[in-house]
Amino acid sequence: MIPIENSLACSVAEHLDLLLTHKLSIEREFKLRIVHNLIALPGTRMRGIREVYSHPVALDQCRDFFRKHSAIRAVPFYDTAGSVKHVIETNAGEAGGIASRLAARQYGGRILAAGIEDDKRNFTRFFLIRRTARPSPRANKTSIAFSVKNVPGALFKALSVFALRDISLSKIESRPRRGHPFEYVFFADFLRGDDEPARNALRHLGEVADLVKVLGIYPALR
Amino acid sequence: MIPIENSLACSVAEHLDLLLTHKLSIEREFKLRIVHNLIALPGTRMRGIREVYSHPVALDQCRDFFRKHSAIRAVPFYDTAGSVKHVIETNAGEAGGIASRLAARQYGGRILAAGIEDDKRNFTRFFLIRRTARPSPRANKTSIAFSVKNVPGALFKALSVFALRDISLSKIESRPRRGHPFEYVFFADFLRGDDEPARNALRHLGEVADLVKVLGIYPALR
Repeated sequence: MIPIENSLACSVAEHLDLLLTHKLSIEREFKLRIVHNLIALPGTRMRGIREVYSHPVALDQCRDFFRKHSAIRAVPFYDTAGSVKHVIETNAGEAGGIASRLAARQYGGRILAAGIEDDKRNFTRFFLIRRTARPSPRANKTSIAFSVKNVPGALFKALSVFALRDISLSKIESRPRRGHPFEYVFFADFLRGDDEPARNALRHLGEVADLVKVLGIYPALR
Repeated sequence: MIPIENSLACSVAEHLDLLLTHKLSIEREFKLRIVHNLIALPGTRMRGIREVYSHPVALDQCRDFFRKHSAIRAVPFYDTAGSVKHVIETNAGEAGGIASRLAARQYGGRILAAGIEDDKRNFTRFFLIRRTARPSPRANKTSIAFSVKNVPGALFKALSVFALRDISLSKIESRPRRGHPFEYVFFADFLRGDDEPARNALRHLGEVADLVKVLGIYPALR
């Protein structure tokens, strides 16, 4: 399971490159609503908290909380769940961690404040990946990578293979191709499973693109 | 100055949204080669180092170093330069920070190992932004944002305005539009300044897109 977009771990680009260069297949996609909670030892009260640990990105997503509680110091920690584990294990009565409800349950912490993230529309998209493709009969979404030369109209030609077949793209992202200056890799998702129009579009794409790799065919989440 | 791609601060998406929603203009782009150095108090020797502080992303980009020096513990810190400041100020003789050459100079640290990042092709792209546009006469690159409805071929139509005029796109990225479900914002760069073909393309784009915003017209870096 790898985070792919809007991730806490800042690893989107790395993970896209991983999918491109390894023999891996996306089996499913997930979207997780990110909820940050202030978690402490049972018995600790909010006014007793002096330090709060979490991943820097999580701390940054809770700026309003730290503005309102100016006596509490934000301290960066390797990851969110780990910060709770640390607080509980070290019996730190003046400290808290910011993490998920699951982390509180897992390490025996108590939630002192729930949903303290500034922006409630905070989602992370994950891919479940496997070494071998196991296509689902409900698959209706395909993730691909393809590369084109850096000449005018190259991307336009590549996208024509979908437009001509009324296939919707739900994502596209260009990235410089490693070790190939002036070439780009595009990561795109389109809303078809493994059917005749999709196969035709991919065959057609193979004619206009230098490289085409299907990263996975899987059921779309709404 | 804001990091926009491949950033240490994980803030790409935030910064793109900022450019879209605020009255700001990109004046220049920069690319910085990211070089990570192990920096310590003058007099400290490599074998004396037990802990190394830095931003989690920087630590992660130096995995080979920590694999080779398994006695050294990687400790996450808020930012890279700050980790060096911390080591120097606290007189920590068994600790180091991972940061730039500039940070070493600024805080009087000594570089014990230079260029310890795993991947030497590590760049971050920055934008210099201003509240008011001050177009450069050497401008030959334009960053825009535009939105289209989630219907097949909408992006294809939008890109046709560039392809028909032989204008090269050097970047494109789709993002869900905040507060407008099933609509997308595309962030794109094309390789023209403020000339006749570019103005025609943008006027044409206005006919096929719901929203078009020029984020900046500036000199391209190679």
